Amino acid sequence: MNIVIIGGVAGGMSAAARLRRLDESATITVVERSGHVSFANCGLPYHVGGVIPERSALLLQTPEALRARFELDVRVQTEAVRIDRDRRVVVVRSLMGGSESELPYDALVLAPGARPVRPAIPGIERALALRSVEDTDAMVAAVAGARTAVVVGGGFIGVETAENLLHRGLAVTMVEATPQVMAPLDPEMGAPVHAALREAGIDLRLSASVTAIGERDVELSTGERVPADLVVAAIGVRPDTGLAQAAGLEIGARGGIVVDDHLRTSDPAIYAVGDAVEKADALDGSPVLVPLANTANLQGRRVADLIAGRDVRDRPVLGTAIVGVLGLQVATVGWNEKRLVAAGRAHRVIHTHPLSHAGYYPGAQGLALKLLVDPGTDAILGAQAVGRDGADKRIDVIATAMRGGLTASDLAELELAYAPQFGSAKDPVNMLGFVDENLASGLTDSIQWHEVEDAQRDGVTVVDVRTPEEFAAGAIPGAVNVPVDEVRDRLDEVPEGDLVVHCAVGVRAHLATRILQASGRSVRNLDGGYRTWVAGMASRS
Amino acid sequence: MNIVIIGGVAGGMSAAARLRRLDESATITVVERSGHVSFANCGLPYHVGGVIPERSALLLQTPEALRARFELDVRVQTEAVRIDRDRRVVVVRSLMGGSESELPYDALVLAPGARPVRPAIPGIERALALRSVEDTDAMVAAVAGARTAVVVGGGFIGVETAENLLHRGLAVTMVEATPQVMAPLDPEMGAPVHAALREAGIDLRLSASVTAIGERDVELSTGERVPADLVVAAIGVRPDTGLAQAAGLEIGARGGIVVDDHLRTSDPAIYAVGDAVEKADALDGSPVLVPLANTANLQGRRVADLIAGRDVRDRPVLGTAIVGVLGLQVATVGWNEKRLVAAGRAHRVIHTHPLSHAGYYPGAQGLALKLLVDPGTDAILGAQAVGRDGADKRIDVIATAMRGGLTASDLAELELAYAPQFGSAKDPVNMLGFVDENLASGLTDSIQWHEVEDAQRDGVTVVDVRTPEEFAAGAIPGAVNVPVDEVRDRLDEVPEGDLVVHCAVGVRAHLATRILQASGRSVRNLDGGYRTWVAGMASRS
Repeated sequence: MNIVIIGGVAGGMSAAARLRRLDESATITVVERSGHVSFANCGLPYHVGGVIPERSALLLQTPEALRARFELDVRVQTEAVRIDRDRRVVVVRSLMGGSESELPYDALVLAPGARPVRPAIPGIERALALRSVEDTDAMVAAVAGARTAVVVGGGFIGVETAENLLHRGLAVTMVEATPQVMAPLDPEMGAPVHAALREAGIDLRLSASVTAIGERDVELSTGERVPADLVVAAIGVRPDTGLAQAAGLEIGARGGIVVDDHLRTSDPAIYAVGDAVEKADALDGSPVLVPLANTANLQGRRVADLIAGRDVRDRPVLGTAIVGVLGLQVATVGWNEKRLVAAGRAHRVIHTHPLSHAGYYPGAQGLALKLLVDPGTDAILGAQAVGRDGADKRIDVIATAMRGGLTASDLAELELAYAPQFGSAKDPVNMLGFVDENLASGLTDSIQWHEVEDAQRDGVTVVDVRTPEEFAAGAIPGAVNVPVDEVRDRLDEVPEGDLVVHCAVGVRAHLATRILQASGRSVRNLDGGYRTWVAGMASRS
Repeated sequence: MNIVIIGGVAGGMSAAARLRRLDESATITVVERSGHVSFANCGLPYHVGGVIPERSALLLQTPEALRARFELDVRVQTEAVRIDRDRRVVVVRSLMGGSESELPYDALVLAPGARPVRPAIPGIERALALRSVEDTDAMVAAVAGARTAVVVGGGFIGVETAENLLHRGLAVTMVEATPQVMAPLDPEMGAPVHAALREAGIDLRLSASVTAIGERDVELSTGERVPADLVVAAIGVRPDTGLAQAAGLEIGARGGIVVDDHLRTSDPAIYAVGDAVEKADALDGSPVLVPLANTANLQGRRVADLIAGRDVRDRPVLGTAIVGVLGLQVATVGWNEKRLVAAGRAHRVIHTHPLSHAGYYPGAQGLALKLLVDPGTDAILGAQAVGRDGADKRIDVIATAMRGGLTASDLAELELAYAPQFGSAKDPVNMLGFVDENLASGLTDSIQWHEVEDAQRDGVTVVDVRTPEEFAAGAIPGAVNVPVDEVRDRLDEVPEGDLVVHCAVGVRAHLATRILQASGRSVRNLDGGYRTWVAGMASRS
């Protein structure tokens, strides 16, 4: 059996290695446009920053090593120029000699990945990307003589690149077209990321775009010019579908190659995996683009199993992702609130601000967590975590719970490993379950940060149950201060009518809510407390 | 409603606070024998070691604060001496004045916890325990003048205490009656813990016991005398059932208070939670003692819900646990192999040795993972993780998968958050799933470290596919060295008959196994490779 794989990084190389382990006799050829296969693409920004000092650390395999170990025919600097589907042949061209040749296939796997989006603005040819080892070499060379950089785009690659350019001593400006970096986060969850970027000295320009790139600067939509010895385009990526499109394979509405749950394209002899394909969303089955390394690797393994005749299926994706930003961990899974709102899907929102581990043990870090829940079924729809420690663990646990079909209330009952260095006897994930169960069972009701102003306009009184000292240091306009420990004795001081109660994060307010409910009052607890409210308001300004 | 709670730490105090939030009008009285409630019992060893320098950090609440916030009547230094079930009254005695009084109850919650086991050996009265703040004060005082310490018992509290005494500059001997510390681990997984203890300078005496405690030393079962200015008894704990037993409540075969899934004892007006009760095992439903803080806290919350008339049930326990040992994380969930063997339960074993995060990013730490699987259903039966980073996360993910009913093969498909600082594109948990799927589907077969010798006796040849350098540095007696990259070319050199193939951890051997299988050979991969074999053999010596 002749198997040809186009693309030799995550999905393609996983497929090649697994195929060899499943079929010792197959002829397996891997075609890669760049000069390297199986390189550490998620490590590229960190080599630019010197965090991974040795370039060789990025190069996990060589064609020679892959031949020796897996008997793979790996052709780097080789471009697949055309697929002749009738003859089942791929025409490839060496980028060194220019010579063309034909590779016959019984099964063809497309794993071309994605290409960086390059906006059509004057001077864009000077903008660097960060997708290949060659891109990395170019950026390392450019950094050497540079003092200033503009990073266009505040997504995963944008923030990683900005951080690493900062490490190299450059003055970095980040230009993001929307009001918020890290689009997978909801606005109020993005606030700590903005703070971290600014504290580190990055000049963060939100709701701004680059209109032109000059020789030593860029022009912004605000009219300003910002110095830029170096310009990085990190606006996002698009599926690399040129070859598939030219071969007449079906391309979906999202711009990715369409595959079925056997990872087959519209031609059953041609499979496709990774960033280039549209995946099925785990929540609603709709086609989505999820350019993540773990998904690509899993699909690469699955396609090998399918070609070898094993009974597996591609699975819908949750899109679990994480990025490090200047010591902050930003992790997400499933849908965010923006997407739920846009889809008109009912949802319950829970914000908490726990510590990464027991507060009495040194080194505990604050976490901001957000959970999105289907109010009808109590199904977990998504989660977000931002903090300096333990965000990865909590999102992994929630992603696993989602895959296992656990409800949000079930999170209350998870037995998670506890010692004071690692968590709390009631882990932050348990606490999310407690809050959800209180809401789902109707024990308490909550209100979101962005609903407070309207509620006040409708005559609702906000009762702040923090201490007078906390209240004096900053409070919601119009709020009345009655510390939680005094609520029972000062019930008659609480104004009539409907109430919103809040504290710093929601815990003291939960008790106050219950006390006030017991006295017959109609009360909602401000979800996530003053901390979430402040973050939300900051995201609006 | 009058509610009396005996015991004011994890389970008892969780119950009290939750009860108040559910019922503002209840009268809630908490009776605690020690001088403190709601203290950080899992932090006590770290205060001894100075890691938590301030004693006040251990004291999370005071009776006064609990009255102000939760309107609880908290009576410390008060002992419950008798339950009069007919009159529904608890007789309590003040340990300060000695006066007795009666507390009537509509519902009584027993949360007395567990008491340290104290073996009946001469001099035992000098041995210190570590269960209360008072115990901690005593140990801090004793450390002051001490240079040597003997810790009896190598369980959770034993290793934590030994580490902290070491921090305080004492010469520490640990005496463990079995051949292994950390009983939740299987022997080969305990080897790195032994190594860590010894490297840190702890004099580790396995398969030894203390026969007598002298004034400045202890006598061991070996006849030796070991200096011991300080002796710590950390042999384990037993449910504190004195009060329950005297009241005629049912006590189970394991020695804990028997409760139903409504946490009711044999008297329906009396509930019990936490370390004092027998729980239902999540795997087989049998009664088990699981003295863990998270379980106690969860039961405390549940019992409050039940007393308040909410529809919840106590859940069977997985017993997820973790301990830090000199920078090592030791985490476990579910059953270990020892227990499966003892129960005669069929099981598949998987050992892996992944890195905590991508190897090309600085700081990756080695992990040893073990997964136990039901070969009939592919259900996950248990897992163990030992390493300097990321063990907690992997065990939490597996515990969540177990709760969600995911199979071991399903672990292959989990979408876990990946960036090079936090994991791998194929996370260690995914890799466990890959290995399981290969075994479950019959693609490959494995052999365990302790089966190799017998296999060799039966004529099986061991083929070591590591490099000649690795082979020269240490190998399994009788093994033949054929490096993985040469296996295809040297097939005729491989001796006839059945084969066991191995490398360092199992990955290269997997490929070699497949190559040899393709040439018609009968092959088993040595699970966990040479590394697990060495650890296993070390555990025997």
